[in-house]
Amino acid sequence: MIDLSEVVRLLLEKKKILILAHSHPDGDTLGSAFALSRALRAKGKQTDVLCGDEITKNYEFMSMGMEKQSFVPEFVVAVDVADEKLLGGELEKKYSQKIDLCIDHHGSNTGFAAISYIDSDSAATAEIIFDIINIMGIELDKYMADCIYTGISTDTGCFRYSNTSSRTHRIAAEVIDAGANTSAIDREFFETKTKTYAALEKMALDTLKMYFDEKCAIMTVTREMFSKSGSNAAECDKIAALPRQIEGVLVGATIREQEGGSVKISVRTHPPVDAAALCSRMGGGGHIRAAGCKIEAGIEKATEILLSNIKEALSEYDEGKK
Amino acid sequence: MIDLSEVVRLLLEKKKILILAHSHPDGDTLGSAFALSRALRAKGKQTDVLCGDEITKNYEFMSMGMEKQSFVPEFVVAVDVADEKLLGGELEKKYSQKIDLCIDHHGSNTGFAAISYIDSDSAATAEIIFDIINIMGIELDKYMADCIYTGISTDTGCFRYSNTSSRTHRIAAEVIDAGANTSAIDREFFETKTKTYAALEKMALDTLKMYFDEKCAIMTVTREMFSKSGSNAAECDKIAALPRQIEGVLVGATIREQEGGSVKISVRTHPPVDAAALCSRMGGGGHIRAAGCKIEAGIEKATEILLSNIKEALSEYDEGKK
Repeated sequence: MIDLSEVVRLLLEKKKILILAHSHPDGDTLGSAFALSRALRAKGKQTDVLCGDEITKNYEFMSMGMEKQSFVPEFVVAVDVADEKLLGGELEKKYSQKIDLCIDHHGSNTGFAAISYIDSDSAATAEIIFDIINIMGIELDKYMADCIYTGISTDTGCFRYSNTSSRTHRIAAEVIDAGANTSAIDREFFETKTKTYAALEKMALDTLKMYFDEKCAIMTVTREMFSKSGSNAAECDKIAALPRQIEGVLVGATIREQEGGSVKISVRTHPPVDAAALCSRMGGGGHIRAAGCKIEAGIEKATEILLSNIKEALSEYDEGKK
Repeated sequence: MIDLSEVVRLLLEKKKILILAHSHPDGDTLGSAFALSRALRAKGKQTDVLCGDEITKNYEFMSMGMEKQSFVPEFVVAVDVADEKLLGGELEKKYSQKIDLCIDHHGSNTGFAAISYIDSDSAATAEIIFDIINIMGIELDKYMADCIYTGISTDTGCFRYSNTSSRTHRIAAEVIDAGANTSAIDREFFETKTKTYAALEKMALDTLKMYFDEKCAIMTVTREMFSKSGSNAAECDKIAALPRQIEGVLVGATIREQEGGSVKISVRTHPPVDAAALCSRMGGGGHIRAAGCKIEAGIEKATEILLSNIKEALSEYDEGKK
């Protein structure tokens, strides 16, 4: 693999750099993209960030904090994008097979870019961007600090997931000293529930069922719950953490009904269950403790498929104990 | 105020040191007490830790991890104890006016000890203990690392409360490198709900009521809910965080019915409301964003008293805006 100083050399020799975030954007893809964009501008580059989906209100401080620039890109960089498909409809069509560089922390990255820098030891892609900014010799401003803090805090559940390392905490300390408004960011992403989300959470928790000696908990979110609560899919991301929180649960799954009769499944696990391996059996992927997949079936059938795969994953574990 | 090297000098010149934690013990008082105890033993001292209440199962790795020692103490140290009363019944009787040194981070510390080292800039007393261990020149072992991580993570809501500083993160990085088992600790304290707690949470959330333009949310936990859910007061601590989480809420309060007709009130605020000031009007105290008090009245009357005080606190804020 290419090393990080080589990545920096590649970026610095270009003048017009387009940065792509993944669709259904989260704090890490946006934080990484906008921090990198600002850093490259500090080096005199023209840059822009594109995302296939709308940027929700809680990330607007990033997109509103930097003017758009229009240019014909000579270098296209994808950040935190594990698979070309995750660029989403329009962006995927336009940039498929045209990504020059991908900077990512997903071990499952498909290697779709001409050059890839993948570090799966990083809890967030924003950790890699922090290192890149350091190598470039750029002093972090408050904007970059806020972006990087958002990336690492959202991808680690605010430092509580097992991907959090001492490096994660050291970077957090650096961006706090550079002026990151951690109170506002923590409050927005971790300490605040909208009234609509609180209502959705309550309905979802009412569906929670336990299986396999209570080692598995499954929760279902129907389209009706969305319309009743007034909540939306973007808010639904954090709901996926709830089933695994019940004492003794090794696999927590959330089934979300989609339009058109399919479902999305989010899986969260505790050791020794591998969420990425479990979801890849159902055509999905992700990280070892947090992964997902889509199933072209209704809730009932999808639950069956999910349960049979979880049963297998848990029995492998039970076998291993013998 | 005495400086930290002076605190270390005082500790090192003694041979038999008793360390007291506060009653209804939390991660910071126990983590601080046991880490200090282990460090002093590394310096050849006899030490013991006492706490007025039983140490719950999730902290047993601390109390079980070190043998008890029996001796007549020549020096008594209270850690994370803001007020002598918080030592609890037996310990308070025995050690009242006999505390030689208090190490604490509560700005509201009453100065009950002969010598006090109070640093309210520390997110947790465990941060001060970390510095003390460093000054002593002792290398952190895994046990001390686990104790200190438990103290700082539980007192900062795992790095998400506004008391978290860059120093907090740097100490977290150091204890992780010293071998702290953060995954297990985070999972135990932040990612796990017992089934009894999950049931209690649901009942409590059903009582949530909004007041004053939805700037205030109040939740009530009755003794009946405890017996129905099978949950207990120790588990109830974290429930106090929920009312403030609703979008727009500046004051979140939880009223817990006690035996004998009184209630305990936990208050959590967002800026600009001062939780400690609010609770001190009702005979309690604490931190600027998290405080509490006890009221000798039933739920209904206590709610009235609480609401009138919150109304006043919020109107001061509204006055300030004019």
